[in-house]
Amino acid sequence: MTVVGRAADRSAEHGPASQQDMRRQNLAVVLGAVATHSPLSRADVAGRVGLTRAAVSSLVDELIGRGAVTEAAATASGRVGRPGRALTLRDEGPAGLGLEIGVTHLGACVVDLRGEPRVWRRVERANAGRPAGQVLAEAAALAAETEAEAAALGLRVEGRLLAVPGVVPNQPGGLVERAPNLGWCGVRLADHWPDPDTVPEPENEANLGALAEYWNAGRPEETFVHVSAGSGIGAALVIDGRLFRGARGFAGELGHLPVHPDGPECACGARGCLEQYAGEAAVRREAGLAGGPTGTGPGDPVALLAERAAAGHVPTLRALDRAGRALGLALTSAVDLVDPDSLVLGGAYAELAEWLVPPVRAELAARVTVRPWAPEALRPSALGRRGPLLGAALTTVRRIRADPTLLPAG
Amino acid sequence: MTVVGRAADRSAEHGPASQQDMRRQNLAVVLGAVATHSPLSRADVAGRVGLTRAAVSSLVDELIGRGAVTEAAATASGRVGRPGRALTLRDEGPAGLGLEIGVTHLGACVVDLRGEPRVWRRVERANAGRPAGQVLAEAAALAAETEAEAAALGLRVEGRLLAVPGVVPNQPGGLVERAPNLGWCGVRLADHWPDPDTVPEPENEANLGALAEYWNAGRPEETFVHVSAGSGIGAALVIDGRLFRGARGFAGELGHLPVHPDGPECACGARGCLEQYAGEAAVRREAGLAGGPTGTGPGDPVALLAERAAAGHVPTLRALDRAGRALGLALTSAVDLVDPDSLVLGGAYAELAEWLVPPVRAELAARVTVRPWAPEALRPSALGRRGPLLGAALTTVRRIRADPTLLPAG
Repeated sequence: MTVVGRAADRSAEHGPASQQDMRRQNLAVVLGAVATHSPLSRADVAGRVGLTRAAVSSLVDELIGRGAVTEAAATASGRVGRPGRALTLRDEGPAGLGLEIGVTHLGACVVDLRGEPRVWRRVERANAGRPAGQVLAEAAALAAETEAEAAALGLRVEGRLLAVPGVVPNQPGGLVERAPNLGWCGVRLADHWPDPDTVPEPENEANLGALAEYWNAGRPEETFVHVSAGSGIGAALVIDGRLFRGARGFAGELGHLPVHPDGPECACGARGCLEQYAGEAAVRREAGLAGGPTGTGPGDPVALLAERAAAGHVPTLRALDRAGRALGLALTSAVDLVDPDSLVLGGAYAELAEWLVPPVRAELAARVTVRPWAPEALRPSALGRRGPLLGAALTTVRRIRADPTLLPAG
Repeated sequence: MTVVGRAADRSAEHGPASQQDMRRQNLAVVLGAVATHSPLSRADVAGRVGLTRAAVSSLVDELIGRGAVTEAAATASGRVGRPGRALTLRDEGPAGLGLEIGVTHLGACVVDLRGEPRVWRRVERANAGRPAGQVLAEAAALAAETEAEAAALGLRVEGRLLAVPGVVPNQPGGLVERAPNLGWCGVRLADHWPDPDTVPEPENEANLGALAEYWNAGRPEETFVHVSAGSGIGAALVIDGRLFRGARGFAGELGHLPVHPDGPECACGARGCLEQYAGEAAVRREAGLAGGPTGTGPGDPVALLAERAAAGHVPTLRALDRAGRALGLALTSAVDLVDPDSLVLGGAYAELAEWLVPPVRAELAARVTVRPWAPEALRPSALGRRGPLLGAALTTVRRIRADPTLLPAG
């Protein structure tokens, strides 16, 4: 059974507060102090979080009992007084499993409680249009192998998330409502997953990419819009350090913002959507790489675009400039509406940042005029296309850090 | 001194929880139950909120001591057992003052703890371009008269907010960074307000209009975008029932979304901004009402547009249709990015809803295609142009309801 599920995200802020709520919050505060500042002694923790030494000791004992924290044997220190024993997060025990189903690959990753990736696997698979059951069975097999490898390292998976290029509604239930690039519609993971004890929770890949970016490089409580391109264009809003999924889970549908209302018709039925300018298919078509005898085989289209652009291939440069300007228009709307601290280009866009950033910044400079906006507030992500898988694995670790009582008591 | 200030909005969720936090939260839960379901007896409250009878009694005693709640004398009831005495919110005592500086008027309003407006004043004033100190002195005089009238009703103002048509940054300090339609730039209220004990806290009028709409007609934890037109176009995002101000307080700058990127030049320096299609000046110009010898005098331009549209005046109908279509484009971007439950047309737009709603809905229907979107999810506000002033006054009441310890102990 997955002990760390979506319910952990909900806060009880509208009900009365109980001693249990208080203890849960204080466990999280102590675990957070150890995560951020370790090694710390119990006394150091008490000093940092503003609780008494006795309260901290009881909380630390519980965290040790639940397997989240270890305490080193006492060591002689140069300081006067009883030497503190160092508390650190465990690198064995509780862990998070991330899975990813892409249009052309499957991925799996296990991170430990410190957030370190310990197992990482990626296999090429043509997933588009195949029966969901088949794809999910292969993902489950990869997951099982990955968990076995993690177990050999002493890690125990406490939660499982699956990144999908599709819409995952807010209500729980493991439903992928629509993943057009896979050809999925209304796929409930539990209906296809071979082992009922290891069914992962699905989440939109753009959302997970944004969270990974926040956990990797975000400032505390940063508000930003993370845009990533895979086969479609996804965006996600992180508000004060939390993912904002929208009222029904559809927030960040940047690909269909009307950037030129009378522009070319889009597959969605509307006209002039961003995807018609900055989507992978549109960029490849404009660059003269789509379907033609390019002589390079299927390969990695993003790497190919980067290679051509680096070589000065004019149609590619023109296509990327056109994409960047359209992206700049859509992001002007995002800045005007959301007022983020920053904008992040992730996924494939991060790997094409050299050519996309200048036109995006130029549009923002020309159009965001009624408020201050610094060009550097737009940055490429360092994670590139690894973001969603990392975000899927880290989500479990973050949930445990926010509520350590999710871990079985020792 | 204003006891109910902005700091009350911050939650202590990142620090350790204390007994005090718990008591504060439980006071709010009990006050909330009384506010929503009164009359209730102490036993009724205990049943509703899931705390013991003894805990509730102690909390109720504190709420009575702080002047938030009254308890009626015991009355004989038909039921068996000790009759419960009815708890209700007080209609005397703690109250909120709202103030408003518009381009052509000043407003003031006092609401009691139940949220009922008890004093309401509005005076016409040509405020544009006048020295801020002069306008603020007049607003302070109006505020003092209004507070005196409220005091005669037994009400004591616990917090003061001022709605302004301008940008109010997130950091506290009472600064209006920019209010272009008033001609204000960097105005700090405390520098001009005659009585240092009654300086109000400024807030953007669109934000306050959105909050008033939420408190008046919102569903619990609703997420919506509230658009209102005064002299400019303002929007505000309410996310899960809370105002989202953006990273720096600039969220909801809908007026400068690029709806037609190559469209007419805007005063902001960009091209094709929404304001060039749906702003008051643009609509009046398209309708042939701007500056020309209309024979109607200055009057109320919104009422005039409604009157002409109702009479079938073709240029007015055409101008409103053009405005509605541009608004529909901008709101498509808002729906795609934010995924709100609903969109609300407020302020002057509410009073022109008959003509604006059809073209806005038509654009949304044509362009929001990759997710479900019902036409009724766009609604006009019932508050119209009264929203911001009401929101300013209600903010204090809502802060007290969220943290009753803001009230002086009895």
